[in-house]
Amino acid sequence: MTGIAMPAANPRILARRDEIVAGLRALVPGEGVIVSEDERRAFETDALTAYRRMPLAVVLPSTTEQVAAVLAFCDREGVPVVPRGAGTSLAGGALPQEDAIVIGVSKMTQVLDVDLASRTMRVQTGITNLGVSAAIAHEGFFYAPDPSSQLACTIAGNIAMNSGGAHCLKYGVTTNNLMGVTFVTMRGEIVEIGGDAMDAPGLDLLGVICGSEGQFGMVTEATLRILPMAEGARPILFGFETSEAAGAAVAAVLGAGIVPVAIEFMDKIAIDICEDFAHAGYPRDAGALLIVEVEGSPVELDEQLARIEMIARQHGATSSRQAKTAAEAAAIWKGRKSAFGAMGRISDYICMDGTIPTGRLPEVLHRITEICDAQGLKVANIFHAGDGNLHPLVLYDMNDPVSLAKAEEAGEEILRACVEVGGCLTGEHGVGIEKRELMTVQFTHVELAQMMRVKEAFDPNWLMNPAKVFPLEMARPSDVKVAA
Amino acid sequence: MTGIAMPAANPRILARRDEIVAGLRALVPGEGVIVSEDERRAFETDALTAYRRMPLAVVLPSTTEQVAAVLAFCDREGVPVVPRGAGTSLAGGALPQEDAIVIGVSKMTQVLDVDLASRTMRVQTGITNLGVSAAIAHEGFFYAPDPSSQLACTIAGNIAMNSGGAHCLKYGVTTNNLMGVTFVTMRGEIVEIGGDAMDAPGLDLLGVICGSEGQFGMVTEATLRILPMAEGARPILFGFETSEAAGAAVAAVLGAGIVPVAIEFMDKIAIDICEDFAHAGYPRDAGALLIVEVEGSPVELDEQLARIEMIARQHGATSSRQAKTAAEAAAIWKGRKSAFGAMGRISDYICMDGTIPTGRLPEVLHRITEICDAQGLKVANIFHAGDGNLHPLVLYDMNDPVSLAKAEEAGEEILRACVEVGGCLTGEHGVGIEKRELMTVQFTHVELAQMMRVKEAFDPNWLMNPAKVFPLEMARPSDVKVAA
Repeated sequence: MTGIAMPAANPRILARRDEIVAGLRALVPGEGVIVSEDERRAFETDALTAYRRMPLAVVLPSTTEQVAAVLAFCDREGVPVVPRGAGTSLAGGALPQEDAIVIGVSKMTQVLDVDLASRTMRVQTGITNLGVSAAIAHEGFFYAPDPSSQLACTIAGNIAMNSGGAHCLKYGVTTNNLMGVTFVTMRGEIVEIGGDAMDAPGLDLLGVICGSEGQFGMVTEATLRILPMAEGARPILFGFETSEAAGAAVAAVLGAGIVPVAIEFMDKIAIDICEDFAHAGYPRDAGALLIVEVEGSPVELDEQLARIEMIARQHGATSSRQAKTAAEAAAIWKGRKSAFGAMGRISDYICMDGTIPTGRLPEVLHRITEICDAQGLKVANIFHAGDGNLHPLVLYDMNDPVSLAKAEEAGEEILRACVEVGGCLTGEHGVGIEKRELMTVQFTHVELAQMMRVKEAFDPNWLMNPAKVFPLEMARPSDVKVAA
Repeated sequence: MTGIAMPAANPRILARRDEIVAGLRALVPGEGVIVSEDERRAFETDALTAYRRMPLAVVLPSTTEQVAAVLAFCDREGVPVVPRGAGTSLAGGALPQEDAIVIGVSKMTQVLDVDLASRTMRVQTGITNLGVSAAIAHEGFFYAPDPSSQLACTIAGNIAMNSGGAHCLKYGVTTNNLMGVTFVTMRGEIVEIGGDAMDAPGLDLLGVICGSEGQFGMVTEATLRILPMAEGARPILFGFETSEAAGAAVAAVLGAGIVPVAIEFMDKIAIDICEDFAHAGYPRDAGALLIVEVEGSPVELDEQLARIEMIARQHGATSSRQAKTAAEAAAIWKGRKSAFGAMGRISDYICMDGTIPTGRLPEVLHRITEICDAQGLKVANIFHAGDGNLHPLVLYDMNDPVSLAKAEEAGEEILRACVEVGGCLTGEHGVGIEKRELMTVQFTHVELAQMMRVKEAFDPNWLMNPAKVFPLEMARPSDVKVAA
């Protein structure tokens, strides 16, 4: 059906399904084990909806101890495990397979502790990203990483994918805002990693777990760094005639030593679609748009925006508009944050996620257009310009397999172009299944083999979230060792 | 001579010394291999000077390729390798052993690239920490981590130990300011890890390498995140009658949502010693002192300091003094940064490095005094109060082995007390040999075994920086596997 291969299901596991389900029911009582086809269907895909596989069963534990028992059971029985947050992965990171169980965190959503003095917060990882900030908003604090899917996506998923968001230019991505986790290994061991302090003795396993795409184990609790809200924040919109001019303005603002909280870019197609949806006052006559947001006291906001406006004008901004009210600011962000959804109303698309050095923006945008033109496809560009994280949306028709194949080919070419200019394959969506085979474009076999050895230090039998991240054809280091 | 055991040298390696040296000379020409006893003596210890071991030989490569050749040679020949930056480790992290070679980065000190627009800088890792900031100061940029030893310590050492500094409260530690590295594995493979972007696909090996205390491989080049200097910075000194009052003020400032760049604490003994040295105007009549530094525009400095002063007064500050000039500010910091050196002029000491939750400061300080009183030893407290990183200096007499043994016992009790209140064994100095056996106080065997499996994914033969970090008596996971 689609271009990305998944391994065939293991018939020995399929044949033992009833026995495996019975074993899981003994560990997670009540409604924690989902078996019926209807209910399992909700878990057969994630936000990379072109790919679907029905899992063997779905388990929704309520405690860390249940998670440990389930993983130990699966390790013993050789059953693959696909961990799942809210299933918002754009790269197929939560795609099940027929011989795997899905293990979800949706029943573990509690806030366990808030410590404003040490600026930390302890949560169960099934809580949504926005739920974290909502729980501390009345104290004037917030949790910084803010993926577009923040209403739905979970902290578990954010940790697995090391999620970023519009504001990571200033505040960093998940790994920069994560202090510690309760982690369950595939062996069913419960391990405390990191803590309330900035540094801990021993190896920083926290960093390598964050972004390991659910291939190391399950994170059931997390200590997050929370931050006091800025006194105020204000976005400004700039219209430019060309993407080149907008790109040059981004580089100039950053080079001047200004740190906005966010610099977002949209091209002509994206402007029209988002403006239709959000009525935010985006400049429809512009060829490209920048949203620049700054934070601080009223005086600081005025000062920073004046400097940014001067630089933008010097680089050809044809219009500018500051949000005068909170409602105007919200509308500006509503347009940006709803961009993927708004696009989805008018077309199917695959969303790419490459990064590039900021200075190479104009030439890469030009190359993206060329690539998509050659396939006869439309492309919209919406992205985090401040940190060079591109999100080209390649439009296609889901009912036309040829069109999907072309879109995937264009996507691959776009990512190769990003790597060629010194960027990388994924900024924040992860590798999942989507970019698995492309990892060899970015990394040498030596580099991939080193990563795989670390993966095996956690999951020697390769049962956690199988067929993701690493090229399927690459030999596993443990197999090489056996052969040698 | 001292309390911490090192494994006996392997006689088979010692017997093959000439052959090993000849092999090394073939790989690193000229003066890159040091053999004479006189010259080797400079490498027999680090800043944990109570421990000394003469290495077999010292190698100072000039290129990444030479480093790779040396490591591959040692891996093949089974020769242990002790990597070394400037040898400023306070925990014995660079202590050699008789059957090991020391491999140093002192010939690799170049700045390779500065990219202000993307705020990154590429260096060879033998450059000093201060050398990095010095190279970009004229552009108005700086590198944030600032250990007290920054004049001497290298980026290689900073990465190995995940070093912090006085200003890490605001800017984070090394791992928060490191974008990518060129890394040489013990097999002699050259691996590029991370990059110019905030996130990269695949596993974040960068985080687990940073802070791995030279046990994974050698970092020969690094891409560092650099930051624009703040418009201005100003420290303020507060005197308090008691440590308890100062501790409460720290918690109150942080709880109010203010982010100073640094909050430093000194007790009575430390105040006197540092004031004798730096003549910084420290309040000699106070029982404890805080240095709080803030950054921003003149208006912001005034605003922030006024808020901080109000909170400090509410918590019993008996005196306060803002630096009025750059010279006054420099004197205040000179006192703090020279504290360990100034202390060294009047007594031998061991410097502990525990962390605690900020709110537990008063009771832990009280406990530290009790512990040292019981051993008949003096203790001075100087530390990064903002992030709860304690540095009790336990004074002893190096010519009296009994006094050293007592100091080590007191040090161990202090670290246990830190862990008991929810803190940890080391904030920034690392485990090295000093805290190796104490790791079991902080971690379960399951947790340590998981760390050791990751170590083995990089160095299966345990040749990189041996006898550090992990308790000597713990079985290696690979041995357990063989036995099973």
